[in-house]
Amino acid sequence: MRLSQYFLPTLKENPSEAQIVSHRLMLRAGMIRQSSAGIYSWLPLGFRVLANIQRIVEAEQDAIGCQQMLMPTIQPADLWRESDRYDAYGPEMLRIKDRHERDMLYGPTNEEQITDIFRATVKSYRDLPKLLYHVQWKFRDEVRPRFGIMRGREFLMKDAYSFDLDYAGARMSYNKMFVCYLRTFEKLGLKAIPMAADTGPIGGDLSHEFLILAETGESQVFCHRRLLDFKLPETTPTDAKGLQALVDQWTSVYAASDDKHDPVKGNALGTDLVTARGIEVGHIFYFGTKYSKPMKAMVSGPEGGEVTPEMGSYGIGVSRLAGAIIEASHDDAGIIWPESVTPFRVGLINLKSGDSECDAACEDIYRALAGRGVTVLHDDRDQRAGVKFADMDLIGLPWQVVVGPRGVKSGVVEIKNRRSGERQELNRESALARVAGG
Amino acid sequence: MRLSQYFLPTLKENPSEAQIVSHRLMLRAGMIRQSSAGIYSWLPLGFRVLANIQRIVEAEQDAIGCQQMLMPTIQPADLWRESDRYDAYGPEMLRIKDRHERDMLYGPTNEEQITDIFRATVKSYRDLPKLLYHVQWKFRDEVRPRFGIMRGREFLMKDAYSFDLDYAGARMSYNKMFVCYLRTFEKLGLKAIPMAADTGPIGGDLSHEFLILAETGESQVFCHRRLLDFKLPETTPTDAKGLQALVDQWTSVYAASDDKHDPVKGNALGTDLVTARGIEVGHIFYFGTKYSKPMKAMVSGPEGGEVTPEMGSYGIGVSRLAGAIIEASHDDAGIIWPESVTPFRVGLINLKSGDSECDAACEDIYRALAGRGVTVLHDDRDQRAGVKFADMDLIGLPWQVVVGPRGVKSGVVEIKNRRSGERQELNRESALARVAGG
Repeated sequence: MRLSQYFLPTLKENPSEAQIVSHRLMLRAGMIRQSSAGIYSWLPLGFRVLANIQRIVEAEQDAIGCQQMLMPTIQPADLWRESDRYDAYGPEMLRIKDRHERDMLYGPTNEEQITDIFRATVKSYRDLPKLLYHVQWKFRDEVRPRFGIMRGREFLMKDAYSFDLDYAGARMSYNKMFVCYLRTFEKLGLKAIPMAADTGPIGGDLSHEFLILAETGESQVFCHRRLLDFKLPETTPTDAKGLQALVDQWTSVYAASDDKHDPVKGNALGTDLVTARGIEVGHIFYFGTKYSKPMKAMVSGPEGGEVTPEMGSYGIGVSRLAGAIIEASHDDAGIIWPESVTPFRVGLINLKSGDSECDAACEDIYRALAGRGVTVLHDDRDQRAGVKFADMDLIGLPWQVVVGPRGVKSGVVEIKNRRSGERQELNRESALARVAGG
Repeated sequence: MRLSQYFLPTLKENPSEAQIVSHRLMLRAGMIRQSSAGIYSWLPLGFRVLANIQRIVEAEQDAIGCQQMLMPTIQPADLWRESDRYDAYGPEMLRIKDRHERDMLYGPTNEEQITDIFRATVKSYRDLPKLLYHVQWKFRDEVRPRFGIMRGREFLMKDAYSFDLDYAGARMSYNKMFVCYLRTFEKLGLKAIPMAADTGPIGGDLSHEFLILAETGESQVFCHRRLLDFKLPETTPTDAKGLQALVDQWTSVYAASDDKHDPVKGNALGTDLVTARGIEVGHIFYFGTKYSKPMKAMVSGPEGGEVTPEMGSYGIGVSRLAGAIIEASHDDAGIIWPESVTPFRVGLINLKSGDSECDAACEDIYRALAGRGVTVLHDDRDQRAGVKFADMDLIGLPWQVVVGPRGVKSGVVEIKNRRSGERQELNRESALARVAGG
């Protein structure tokens, strides 16, 4: 992509409304733009990141056999009356009347809707277990939306739902998703810490939230040092016992965010206590028959009679992750994207746009990288070098390739790694190989 | 995917509420399920089709340099007051008050929103032209939603917007999109006919709608026979003249849907007049400064002073296309998917699930096809052959591979082409090569 043609409205100044670094950097990097309080448009650069995050989240859901579907944003209020959540949900629910004065709402979550689909279509224990998910926009009418897309009103969420015949099955689904979440955050280049959590308005008995560590995170995190060194095995065990053992490992040591922190337990860890800051990016719940029972979602059981399936739900904040990743990975100059989610892998800086040799060298490098499947943003603008360097650091692509008249004459280009800051002068071939990776 | 584990709630009976064939078949094939009037969930099989359609639409937008972004579903009413459409739009607009009693709405389209983004970020003629799109859910509160997802209330649309300095530029963007649409529908396996159209609530001077031919289509279509034989060139011309000539060719002969049909002109064609039925799946508009002027979206001009950009907008009904493709491609037994959008390429039917030889042969074929990148739905259910054949015909995968005890012994499998109905007995290798294509 040529930057001269790309819709990338970067800002030089820090926008005054942005209180946290991810909000500031997303606005400055031309990733998002506010439409109204807590509601944002994703401009092309931001959209690429959002789509990359979504793709990774989907791939990991698919990998555990969770089947993708898509439920609508607008739900009938009657469904929520069945679970008694319509009145309970409070003013955060965006309530709507359609032209026939029917009560509708913009879904903040989908437990009722998936249970309604399940009860209408699944009739036998033979069809269990079922693990279903979708990635859809949600709305929570926050009283004071802030922090950009980190605490917006309209947000993109991956929510999955499990249906099992009994507790053992439900626990298996919960454990599958627990490990899937750890792997998803790892693929996103993040260190995630699972913590026992309150269940809040979703309800249920067992719940974990996943916080990623970020110096500028919203919550205080307390955990045992060992948790930071836990590694996932190459392949996830598929048997119940192996899976449970893996979950047990990750939940065997102390971890709590500030609202649940027990100073006595924390202090008992002595020098093994790590205190850090974190951001919640995922939350999983086992809630048994909380929805299936009042909504009469029953299947015929293996010994005749009817069984009410045990359910769980599993959320990842997809749009929130774009901000969370920035909170976890930035410096004074701007964003530092992990390779897995970066909007482009390489920023190609032409120091003298309009100079025929520099232009030709850039075109050549662009084509060579594109030919290797590498995404490149080519800064071909008629701008000073300083502006180009600053913008490229701001938008945070992992690699920069700098082409100038002197280098072109001596047959070298400069490459810079955005994260380490390391610069190297290399010949064309070595530079291409280095930034293309592999 | 094993059908025994797949969430595919097919129906044996025709649902009484479905008046048209696509609605009937989508319900029967377990693709969708109604949530409330005109609002549907896409179950896994339907979601795969929707995602495939979206991917093709996106690829063709990307190919003409249209940049993807994502605007929110909920818009502030004030934006629509600026263009005078808030009151004009009528009861089809879903109007919402948030918790602070601010007037919001669920966007039925995005001209105002993109113009607002443009005016805040684009300041110079040097930044033009701009061609931007998104794929997002829209809402139109139809008084009588019907025909399933063909005329639903919540629907997925690709809408693109162009900004140009003058009429010549705007016409160039319009023409690019015109040809892009023809190519998109071709890639989807459809024959699309462009027709001069009224501009309706979008406004403007120049507009075409694209109808695909389907025997069960909603509209009558009248056109010159030659239009059906027009072919797109391998590569689209990139110069204004060549592009205009191509658009001129496609608009040189008579074409009209019933509301615009002129019987005098039609009859003048004599035996060259084709009358058929069609379904609108795309609509493009050039409307000049209809939004940019009242919303004061101006850029500095090349000769100093300010210029109000000329705009166009370009819509494709992504969710509607899933239904339209079925209307265009089905028989009495069910859906016949074009290869480009099919949810799986191959349906693998095990005639004797539980028989170790049949099971092993199916597993082997499944792995071999997956290894070639072919998507397979494996009917491993403990069901009668008749049920399996009927379900597989209903869901319409392009190829069926039938594995039975007799064939396993003699080293052959039967393959069936869903569209032609042709059956062949082939050895394993030939069968794999045939259904894998290429």
